[in-house]
Amino acid sequence: MLVRMNAEATADQIGAMRKHLRSLGYETRRVSIFDEPVYSALPEDDAQPVKVDAIEGCAALIPASPTALVSRATRPQGTRVRVGGVEIGGDEFVVVAGPCSVESLDQLLETALSVRAAGAHLLRGGAYKPRTSTYSFQGLAKKGLQMLAEVRERTGLGIITEVIGPEDVALVAEYADMLQVGARNMQNFPLLKKLGKIGKPVLLKRGAGNTLDEWLSAAEYIVARGNDQVVLCERGIRTFETYTRNTLDISAVAAIHELSHLPIMVDPSHATGKRSLIESGARAALASGADGMCVEVHVRPDESVSDRDQALSPEAFDRIMKGLRPIASAIGRTMSHHPAWELSATPAAVTV
Amino acid sequence: MLVRMNAEATADQIGAMRKHLRSLGYETRRVSIFDEPVYSALPEDDAQPVKVDAIEGCAALIPASPTALVSRATRPQGTRVRVGGVEIGGDEFVVVAGPCSVESLDQLLETALSVRAAGAHLLRGGAYKPRTSTYSFQGLAKKGLQMLAEVRERTGLGIITEVIGPEDVALVAEYADMLQVGARNMQNFPLLKKLGKIGKPVLLKRGAGNTLDEWLSAAEYIVARGNDQVVLCERGIRTFETYTRNTLDISAVAAIHELSHLPIMVDPSHATGKRSLIESGARAALASGADGMCVEVHVRPDESVSDRDQALSPEAFDRIMKGLRPIASAIGRTMSHHPAWELSATPAAVTV
Amino acid sequence: MLVRMNAEATADQIGAMRKHLRSLGYETRRVSIFDEPVYSALPEDDAQPVKVDAIEGCAALIPASPTALVSRATRPQGTRVRVGGVEIGGDEFVVVAGPCSVESLDQLLETALSVRAAGAHLLRGGAYKPRTSTYSFQGLAKKGLQMLAEVRERTGLGIITEVIGPEDVALVAEYADMLQVGARNMQNFPLLKKLGKIGKPVLLKRGAGNTLDEWLSAAEYIVARGNDQVVLCERGIRTFETYTRNTLDISAVAAIHELSHLPIMVDPSHATGKRSLIESGARAALASGADGMCVEVHVRPDESVSDRDQALSPEAFDRIMKGLRPIASAIGRTMSHHPAWELSATPAAVTV
Amino acid sequence: MLVRMNAEATADQIGAMRKHLRSLGYETRRVSIFDEPVYSALPEDDAQPVKVDAIEGCAALIPASPTALVSRATRPQGTRVRVGGVEIGGDEFVVVAGPCSVESLDQLLETALSVRAAGAHLLRGGAYKPRTSTYSFQGLAKKGLQMLAEVRERTGLGIITEVIGPEDVALVAEYADMLQVGARNMQNFPLLKKLGKIGKPVLLKRGAGNTLDEWLSAAEYIVARGNDQVVLCERGIRTFETYTRNTLDISAVAAIHELSHLPIMVDPSHATGKRSLIESGARAALASGADGMCVEVHVRPDESVSDRDQALSPEAFDRIMKGLRPIASAIGRTMSHHPAWELSATPAAVTV
Repeated sequence: MLVRMNAEATADQIGAMRKHLRSLGYETRRVSIFDEPVYSALPEDDAQPVKVDAIEGCAALIPASPTALVSRATRPQGTRVRVGGVEIGGDEFVVVAGPCSVESLDQLLETALSVRAAGAHLLRGGAYKPRTSTYSFQGLAKKGLQMLAEVRERTGLGIITEVIGPEDVALVAEYADMLQVGARNMQNFPLLKKLGKIGKPVLLKRGAGNTLDEWLSAAEYIVARGNDQVVLCERGIRTFETYTRNTLDISAVAAIHELSHLPIMVDPSHATGKRSLIESGARAALASGADGMCVEVHVRPDESVSDRDQALSPEAFDRIMKGLRPIASAIGRTMSHHPAWELSATPAAVTV
Repeated sequence: MLVRMNAEATADQIGAMRKHLRSLGYETRRVSIFDEPVYSALPEDDAQPVKVDAIEGCAALIPASPTALVSRATRPQGTRVRVGGVEIGGDEFVVVAGPCSVESLDQLLETALSVRAAGAHLLRGGAYKPRTSTYSFQGLAKKGLQMLAEVRERTGLGIITEVIGPEDVALVAEYADMLQVGARNMQNFPLLKKLGKIGKPVLLKRGAGNTLDEWLSAAEYIVARGNDQVVLCERGIRTFETYTRNTLDISAVAAIHELSHLPIMVDPSHATGKRSLIESGARAALASGADGMCVEVHVRPDESVSDRDQALSPEAFDRIMKGLRPIASAIGRTMSHHPAWELSATPAAVTV
Repeated sequence: MLVRMNAEATADQIGAMRKHLRSLGYETRRVSIFDEPVYSALPEDDAQPVKVDAIEGCAALIPASPTALVSRATRPQGTRVRVGGVEIGGDEFVVVAGPCSVESLDQLLETALSVRAAGAHLLRGGAYKPRTSTYSFQGLAKKGLQMLAEVRERTGLGIITEVIGPEDVALVAEYADMLQVGARNMQNFPLLKKLGKIGKPVLLKRGAGNTLDEWLSAAEYIVARGNDQVVLCERGIRTFETYTRNTLDISAVAAIHELSHLPIMVDPSHATGKRSLIESGARAALASGADGMCVEVHVRPDESVSDRDQALSPEAFDRIMKGLRPIASAIGRTMSHHPAWELSATPAAVTV
Repeated sequence: MLVRMNAEATADQIGAMRKHLRSLGYETRRVSIFDEPVYSALPEDDAQPVKVDAIEGCAALIPASPTALVSRATRPQGTRVRVGGVEIGGDEFVVVAGPCSVESLDQLLETALSVRAAGAHLLRGGAYKPRTSTYSFQGLAKKGLQMLAEVRERTGLGIITEVIGPEDVALVAEYADMLQVGARNMQNFPLLKKLGKIGKPVLLKRGAGNTLDEWLSAAEYIVARGNDQVVLCERGIRTFETYTRNTLDISAVAAIHELSHLPIMVDPSHATGKRSLIESGARAALASGADGMCVEVHVRPDESVSDRDQALSPEAFDRIMKGLRPIASAIGRTMSHHPAWELSATPAAVTV
């Protein structure tokens, strides 16, 4: 349910409304998506029916569909999300690149410099890794976050890293420019609720077994709590085909653009799981209208501790980027370089 | 990796081994599944290589596959899990029944009495609900747990309830006899890790988009941390067929029995999503060798706040149970009644 | 469209109706499912609109849904199909067994005798094999049909064999008691059309990628042409799970029973693709209400030229049958032996 | 099995080899893909083992994998297929457009002129329609073929039309420039066998439930019989996602290019089933490296008798084509106009 207050509602009236709704079992959050004072009323434990008359200054109580706030109709012009000096959802085709896992400062820095040189805008790297096997490397955790921050200092690249539980959100948000929700956690609702209340953008990957509708409903969990800086990322769905790791649902790009105002990126690395197929997926992503892409690049792919088969070498990544530029021009998108891209190393932080 | 210590290893040696491994970046846990002193060594942040010579009293370092401990070969005789006075994995076909959500004390108590009378062994009911929509009822949380405990007092039925995040494990474990991991959280690894360290059994539902192998690897997360009281529950997988909510993968029952020593139950309610198809699914589950089933029963199905289409009335549940008994006899399984089943109400706790 | 003629419509009126509809581009066929004179009008090339007034003796023109004739409502009591002396759709749980491919007279006869002894009612065996690879054995064709007929003579078992193209229907129908449409041909419409016009029953397997609705629509192709002797056979659908060859959609049994009056069997051999899982699937099929099952049995499974991994030995088949009998009793179904089951060989044809 | 004869093998030796193999149960066909005299030996009924010594002039008997002839390694430079004056598999991005069904000469001609003007190279239109419902329009059959031929006369566009059974191959081949095998018939082996022996190119659509490997094995059925003029067409696979009719497996384009030498096209109309998503799919197809695309265009989309939701208007098609041209240039592909494209009508046949 959404609560629309009168434009001239006083702070006292808003405070009273929130107190009243809390007493009825709702959490209320200001919805950033509207200029008007609209609040989401989100049921907690035994939420009771609400009456509009009982709320002074209330213009309307609006029943909300599971995707009310993320629907295209709510913000026809689209949402733009700013991360590390770049805007996702505008003309720029934003490229996020980096290793699957943060392994060491050297590995991360070398990779970062190479992807920056090739035209990447943001650096990705996992410090918390959700691994199928409990015996596998689980990520460097806080040490990994610190390395990411260090490499941001030295390259100027904003960083995107995954958070796998609500208890880690505060820590990860301290270091990252954008927090990633992985495919396995798309419906980790306590995590989504937490991410709705932070001041950092979120990259929400699609669950491999989830429909577009469920995906948008998951994004609504975040947006309804006041954080509209959400970018969706299609990374392949699970089908009967086994030649590829997943099946890249390329139609999701246009479908999400017609259903929602949120930007959408594509991750051809996870979608295909095979180095040789990433370029084709990247081109399809760009041509189909995606607002950007995430790819896995490792300075020494064959030493990668995770997702080795889909890690690109810096050279392969550079070649792919060179191939994308003319397509971007052809469809009216830009692929700018990072301001510091020509520096082989950056002594101090670069402000972008 | 598993660390097998000599049978005569001293407490000091074990303490030294654990300290040494911690210094190399591993968490160690005694593995309950073996009589011998075997410890799992689970990588945390930057785990370093381990040498057997460096550990006094160590018999062997054993590389572990993702499903090493849950594999049938590890415990050929099978695991039995005791919950609320009943044993899962033995001859008894264990029936878990109850509402999708705990809605009120009355609803829960009435439902509990009716399912107990019909032959259910354990009561299910959700206090924390993972809901697709953020605007839907999210469960009564702690109040729901308290109602469950109250109803256990008055019916003697052990209770099973879902936990949706690691931060709730301690609280839920205080009230529940068995903690359920829902399909959406099958790969919520921080949650699984927490559940590996509690002294309560766990019901691990299969993710709708997950393979048998991933499912067993998820169970390994729990078992490797010392908790071998894990029951698997097949609840339907996501396929192209839309007539049913999910597709009940009935072959998973025999497949899990050949792959693993853990018991497996079937949830025909979520698998089909349709009242009219639950009986058939329940019969298939029993006949195919499942160790039990979970079904949703509501004293007034059409008033159910969630999963209405798949909620059985007490009468329908009773009819299904009556139809299952001869099949159970035919295949050599028992379906006993709860000791208190004929009481219309139980003034005080019944110890089973 | 269905054309319902008046009960007292004359042969001349019916002839005129058919001639008129043909001129408008429809094929008409008497629908065997009704006692009343109902005809299906099936569009060919450029079918034109029809007016009821233009047809003397016509009671009504009824727009037909894609599953009009096969719907449960059309024949609530269910359809029974007689094949080789046994009735499918009644109390008997009908068992079809035999090799994937007919390989030789000896192989077929030995297998037939063993499955008859264990309680099978009908013999299956492929003479025309749809093979993924063009270099694989494609079946013995007519020679295979002749062997099947020979073995029927010597065992009394009715035979079921696959037909893979409309051009073979006449020949196969000469030999077989029931014609099987394989999963790959479920929507081979020219084949279905041909099968609608023969006087032999049809076993219609579900396509691995087809919904229940498409399956019933395919059956309608046959029934609308006058042949209501159709039995459906669930044989697993294609999903992401790879441990089994397909995923046995056990809920399809109850679903088809509520949607349609046609009998439904289950093929646990193709559904699982693994010998060790067939028994569990067979039990689930029986318990869930299937009208019978088809299983692959080979007198020397490891020499089978096709589908080796799912071929049961005669001993395994016998053990499975013994395990099914008590379940059948428990749910009120019969599993009779073939009249000649105790004979080790049958000098002449046995009439059942 | 493949039979490689010596380069200098005489016609007599080849004749003797073929006679010998026939006597052993094989059909032999000259494989057009090699310059050397290589023959496929395709088992029929009870094929017997072959010995190389028994064949005079035989260089080698080569066991063949199910995709031996269609594999990229067999013809690294790729196959080019000529249809109606255009070459598929070269630099040109070949566009096939036209209505789902041929409905009338006017509808077809108007549509043909409009798609030719917008840049289509070939005209598609179904005369034989495989329809889920037996009561639906089944196509104009021979009349439809005649209309297609008439429109080819008047527009110069080569025509592609579907054949749904082996019995129609000869007739369809008389009229069409390229014969299409629809998704439902991808494994209709009698049909594929027939198509291997005609002198016309074949467009082989992927089955909605079939893997890449099965698809290539189906193509091998055709190529092994002497017809290497096969073009593959990805048209979406069946998954759990319901927003789109199918899921366009865009990675199949690059995957097929690495696995096989056959050209591959994409059909974004069937893949998405929604007009609004076709442009995005078409762009993805082109950018990902497809050799062409097939789209459904109807001069009055809302009057289309079949697949209405995915039919493009001529204006929409023209807009899509205009958007594709710069992308084609960017990746080094051409999109030429048909020689007669500016004519509003073509009095006589145009030879291209």
